[in-house]
Amino acid sequence: MIRTFNFGAGPASIPTEVLEEAQQELLDFKGSGLSIMEASHRSALYEDVHNEAISLMKELYDIPKNYEVLFLQGGASTQFTMIPLNLSKGGTIEFVNSGAWSKKAIKEAKILGLNTKVIASSEDTNFDRIPNDISFSNDIDYAHITSNNTIYGTQYREYPKTKAPLVVDASSDIFSYKIDWSNIGLLYAGAQKNAGPSGVTIVIIREDLIGNHKENTPSMLRYSTHADTNSLYNTPPTFGIYILGLTLKWIKAKGGIEAINRLNQQKAKLIYDTIDNSNGFYIGHAQKESRSLMNVSFNIRGKDKNLEKELIEITEKSNMVGLKGHRSVGGIRASIYNAVSLEAVQALVDIMNKFREENDVK
Amino acid sequence: MIRTFNFGAGPASIPTEVLEEAQQELLDFKGSGLSIMEASHRSALYEDVHNEAISLMKELYDIPKNYEVLFLQGGASTQFTMIPLNLSKGGTIEFVNSGAWSKKAIKEAKILGLNTKVIASSEDTNFDRIPNDISFSNDIDYAHITSNNTIYGTQYREYPKTKAPLVVDASSDIFSYKIDWSNIGLLYAGAQKNAGPSGVTIVIIREDLIGNHKENTPSMLRYSTHADTNSLYNTPPTFGIYILGLTLKWIKAKGGIEAINRLNQQKAKLIYDTIDNSNGFYIGHAQKESRSLMNVSFNIRGKDKNLEKELIEITEKSNMVGLKGHRSVGGIRASIYNAVSLEAVQALVDIMNKFREENDVK
Repeated sequence: MIRTFNFGAGPASIPTEVLEEAQQELLDFKGSGLSIMEASHRSALYEDVHNEAISLMKELYDIPKNYEVLFLQGGASTQFTMIPLNLSKGGTIEFVNSGAWSKKAIKEAKILGLNTKVIASSEDTNFDRIPNDISFSNDIDYAHITSNNTIYGTQYREYPKTKAPLVVDASSDIFSYKIDWSNIGLLYAGAQKNAGPSGVTIVIIREDLIGNHKENTPSMLRYSTHADTNSLYNTPPTFGIYILGLTLKWIKAKGGIEAINRLNQQKAKLIYDTIDNSNGFYIGHAQKESRSLMNVSFNIRGKDKNLEKELIEITEKSNMVGLKGHRSVGGIRASIYNAVSLEAVQALVDIMNKFREENDVK
Repeated sequence: MIRTFNFGAGPASIPTEVLEEAQQELLDFKGSGLSIMEASHRSALYEDVHNEAISLMKELYDIPKNYEVLFLQGGASTQFTMIPLNLSKGGTIEFVNSGAWSKKAIKEAKILGLNTKVIASSEDTNFDRIPNDISFSNDIDYAHITSNNTIYGTQYREYPKTKAPLVVDASSDIFSYKIDWSNIGLLYAGAQKNAGPSGVTIVIIREDLIGNHKENTPSMLRYSTHADTNSLYNTPPTFGIYILGLTLKWIKAKGGIEAINRLNQQKAKLIYDTIDNSNGFYIGHAQKESRSLMNVSFNIRGKDKNLEKELIEITEKSNMVGLKGHRSVGGIRASIYNAVSLEAVQALVDIMNKFREENDVK
């Protein structure tokens, strides 16, 4: 069986080993004669899966004891509402606007009628960088950033220091580097880029931020509802959490998050070097100091749509998918999340080099 | 491989044929070299799965043209909030209180500060029936019922006629009988009992009820957000929708919902006859005219906890799971959703008969 090299932005690559294990036990999980999909969320069979995923995450990600791990539904898009409903005290929420997802987070806080302030933005240059003038106020309810911007291929080198709780949308780079938790109030991510299939939302929240919602907050939108019940208030997305757990085991087997990060650096360097050594044939969208290790967005000299299309067609004929850039940037986007292999990236780089040699008329 | 007979209340049995197909193509969906879990929700590969599930549902369930099928997240528990946020016009919402899930729906409408009225209830007799004095007012925003009550094993024979839109929580009996859509405004269900794995919420909503939310309704909680984007506003739970689609194909291959319903009647009759012919050894919780075809809750004479425990242990040694009753009723609960085979039910009935012969001292 040939597995396609998947450079898609999400839902994205899942480790082959994870899928193989899931396949093997899909009709008979641990000798139960049941699929894990069929197991009651109140059964020991499932609860072991659930609790193991939580404890593995705490271990691999060095999550401090005063944080809760929650498994929710609805993606980052639902967190854009849950976070202000639970963390706002009626004061100001400050945002960095580093791309489309930051804007959506701001929009949802505004829909709730809250005070929002954008303290730094890179919108004027089509989000080609993480703003470098980030300074959050001290007397705010919380500070919000998007750690990695999938569309534009930008990523924080380190998170800003804040006095107020820092809230991080890590949907596209969770589990790809170690975190300094010292000022983080809440970190959240949809699983479908770096952690498993779509349909599971991971929320890691500092305990003191739980339970401060207003009285008219729906039960499902209160963090306390889920924290008080170990994310079993209602039926969780059990199969997705199972695949997330297998993905965490795979990370552990690979040597943990630091080892994965080294591999990610190696993978990203291969592509960025190819861009930088192309004499301007390939043009990275992100400024160098903001380059993402997860998504590499680039164009071909003069934003040549014909050449860009041709290159994408070549990749598609070469057992690769997902390389078409987002319409906001155009060109090519290579998403190289944890589960994308060095072999896949090397194959892409080989194609990029060959294509440049054949087409660079300058 | 021996497949366990799964009588669990949810997540519940999934047809073996569905799991086998999913297993076979788990690493290579339709020759793509990708798992369907890894496919972008914007790819043709996934969109075909998504759209086929919608069209199959419309076909099998005879959904009229002026209804939209939406795939959401968060379960019925999130619908308890979304429905009033979208359908309330500031008037009264009337409910029938037929059990724990009805109560939760009422509670969430109250949290939003809305006018709620319970027009019929069976709480005084521990929800052993569907109330028979149901008469909704005409000048209300909508009427809400729970079509089947998983814990108590009660089910509507037919839905009440209403002038206002009828809203039906069909989480535990969706796709198990044909629906008269004439007065239905919205029908919803978590997939994990009768339609697939947990993590997918099905909403079937009449078009004129979409778009009437208040301005401060979060985008993810507006039906219009999802209706306008074919449920692709954000990343949907793709794998769950895929399994739901396979389950619908399985229903079609079995002859459609009417054929499934005949089988369900046959299965339920086997157990209810065993109860009725047990000379009072087995006592059904639900009154006869309210008996559910999906969940059969019963006790043993005198609510004998030792005998009930013993019977459950025997089933567990006989390749069966999920028969322990909910704490609100105690005893035994056999959930016999669409995917539970006649063979499984016959095996259970055989055990029940043998157990009675051995233990009925009267």
